[in-house]
Amino acid sequence: MQLQQEAGYEYIEGGVCAAAGFLANGCHCGLDSNPQKNDLGMIYSERLCNAAAVYTTNLVKGAPILVTQKNLKASEGKARAVIVNSKNANTCNADGEEKAWNMCELAAEQLKITPEEVIVASTGVIGQALPIEPIALHIKDLAAGLSQEHHTQAAEAIMTTDTIKKEVAVSFILGGKTCRLGGMAKGSGMIHPNMATTLNFITTDAAVSAKMLQQALREVVKVTYNCLSVDGDMSTNDMVCVLANGIAGNDEVAAEGESYETFKRALYLVLLHLTKMLARDGEGATKLIECTCTEAPDLDTAITAAKSVISSSLVKSAMFGADANCGRILCALGYCGAQLDVSKVDVELASAKGSILVCGGGNGLAFSEEQAAEILGEEELEIRINLHQGNVTAKAWGCDLTYDYVKINADYRS
Amino acid sequence: MQLQQEAGYEYIEGGVCAAAGFLANGCHCGLDSNPQKNDLGMIYSERLCNAAAVYTTNLVKGAPILVTQKNLKASEGKARAVIVNSKNANTCNADGEEKAWNMCELAAEQLKITPEEVIVASTGVIGQALPIEPIALHIKDLAAGLSQEHHTQAAEAIMTTDTIKKEVAVSFILGGKTCRLGGMAKGSGMIHPNMATTLNFITTDAAVSAKMLQQALREVVKVTYNCLSVDGDMSTNDMVCVLANGIAGNDEVAAEGESYETFKRALYLVLLHLTKMLARDGEGATKLIECTCTEAPDLDTAITAAKSVISSSLVKSAMFGADANCGRILCALGYCGAQLDVSKVDVELASAKGSILVCGGGNGLAFSEEQAAEILGEEELEIRINLHQGNVTAKAWGCDLTYDYVKINADYRS
Repeated sequence: MQLQQEAGYEYIEGGVCAAAGFLANGCHCGLDSNPQKNDLGMIYSERLCNAAAVYTTNLVKGAPILVTQKNLKASEGKARAVIVNSKNANTCNADGEEKAWNMCELAAEQLKITPEEVIVASTGVIGQALPIEPIALHIKDLAAGLSQEHHTQAAEAIMTTDTIKKEVAVSFILGGKTCRLGGMAKGSGMIHPNMATTLNFITTDAAVSAKMLQQALREVVKVTYNCLSVDGDMSTNDMVCVLANGIAGNDEVAAEGESYETFKRALYLVLLHLTKMLARDGEGATKLIECTCTEAPDLDTAITAAKSVISSSLVKSAMFGADANCGRILCALGYCGAQLDVSKVDVELASAKGSILVCGGGNGLAFSEEQAAEILGEEELEIRINLHQGNVTAKAWGCDLTYDYVKINADYRS
Repeated sequence: MQLQQEAGYEYIEGGVCAAAGFLANGCHCGLDSNPQKNDLGMIYSERLCNAAAVYTTNLVKGAPILVTQKNLKASEGKARAVIVNSKNANTCNADGEEKAWNMCELAAEQLKITPEEVIVASTGVIGQALPIEPIALHIKDLAAGLSQEHHTQAAEAIMTTDTIKKEVAVSFILGGKTCRLGGMAKGSGMIHPNMATTLNFITTDAAVSAKMLQQALREVVKVTYNCLSVDGDMSTNDMVCVLANGIAGNDEVAAEGESYETFKRALYLVLLHLTKMLARDGEGATKLIECTCTEAPDLDTAITAAKSVISSSLVKSAMFGADANCGRILCALGYCGAQLDVSKVDVELASAKGSILVCGGGNGLAFSEEQAAEILGEEELEIRINLHQGNVTAKAWGCDLTYDYVKINADYRS
């Protein structure tokens, strides 16, 4: 998948350890029955960080989310470490919060920090008790193995049905200093975020105030993760958190302005790429679908329209079958909930193989089925909606609906 | 599928012709490439009817919907006939309304009524011009073949990806007179109604005022069709219409009261069964899923919660795989949008093979996987949600998500 190139930002290696002062590790502790699969991960900052986070708006919230929220409140928005496991979501369990707090204590003890400085997250099956013993048994080795090189082990530890590790990082200049911002994400199914998505950990050595960090995260998540849907199911354990340790030595970004915009753009590029990776690696997916909605009256309308299209099971099935079914796209626009004049809408389908207009002024057009099938045969598709009722653009990302989505989810727990 | 038995109501044969004075027919006119498949249908009443209808709330509305709305306005809520085709939705076409009006004129000419007394409907592919010639060529024979026996031909004419014809009828006593109410429906995919669903034609010989007919339809649709989802995609052509010709000779039902309730219950039983038939015949479905939400604080909450569960792709996939994944059910409750105390919720899975409690007080419970798999191996499943926060019950209906749903929709147009 292509990275969006932009002057002033250079993509670098290192994931969550690309930023100075961050170490990570991952190991197999035994939650997963596959002994080759990492299931426990850790991130550590050599210096105390300002932390910002957004969470799922699902009323059923994973116990780790509740504990992380309490911790960040107790620490006044500071954090130094992340402890995270896969295979078990530690959600809908009577002793869930107790276990999540245990994980913080176990990590804090090894790292010689307070448990309140630990962000805890879990992902996997909901409603099954989390065994704490495997974590307790492996925490010492996990912490001892922390290093700048082990970002990949950590990225692997958070994978569930993901087929690829998701890491990306950029470097950029802020107040004359070189800063780095990188992250990792997991997610493949149960993805339809609202205010956050799946597990995402972002680290930066830029100095940014807690307030501006939270503001940047909210603004960027709105146009990246919250414009992503794999299957319409909003997870109970969604979380995006950003840790900023300030080691780069720039003057702290503490207000809106040029520096804030520079930082926010770095965050955007990293979250954008992770969002696209999540969509492309949606459960069973064979294609990335990007829907671009242009000439909308406002941002919310553009997002709502684009997201409705990439969420439609019928559109997703048609894209799997390379079928240029413009009626389903118009149908999804019509029920999206935004007040649109559907009689003005143009729809174009595009990929590396070219583009084709399939709908003009709200009506289906005659087009070459052969050309359409060639365009839709590619692995990265764009659905371009022009509303012709304003000047705002937004994008949303999703994937096709395939036999394998059903196969993966017909028997996920075993 | 079992009919819901109820004292005072007897299920009878005859579909849309079960009520006295209604005739129907269906034929193959050539819109469908399969010469064995009826694609044009007609219903006719010997006497002018009071008509009530509810329509899709999709902003993209099929041209037949717009024309039917105009006709019922012009005729002050009276109608005598229905003309309907499958294979082409006549939606998102520049000449759509003109063609829909042509269909009314063609039918009216044969039936010697005014075009405004005709209800017109189309279902099928969106965004392709409707050829009117096949309809014009066959309208005479279609009208000439109208009979009480041909309700099945009409029911077949509205099928698209449906695998079974959907007809049901009841008889009941109203004001001392025997009345009949029957209907037919089509629908399999693009089903997630709001105020109406897919194509549904209901006929009755009971005398009911236009106002009470509309009120009964709205009330019943709220707890039947609007609690149905196959794939979350709300169609552009949804319509439920009821024609009441009064031939039974009862005193007209013109206000709320006992007669109104008796009539409404007949309408409920017919729409309930058609709703369940639509769910069971959802595209690719192998199982009917009924979600019953009890002890809710109000009806809207109960409906919202039940509908969220049966709409979840993850729940639907799990049911296909007979996997008792209670976490996904709780997850779907958590994002349904209603304000629930999820810590009180019990979840039970049931079928003809028994029932099993999988969640108590918002937490997952230990249960026999063997027993759960046996229960979920059946073709009709019930998910019982007890919210423990009120005394209102509602149901919603859906189906499992299968490989065949994807197969059917990856290449629907060809």
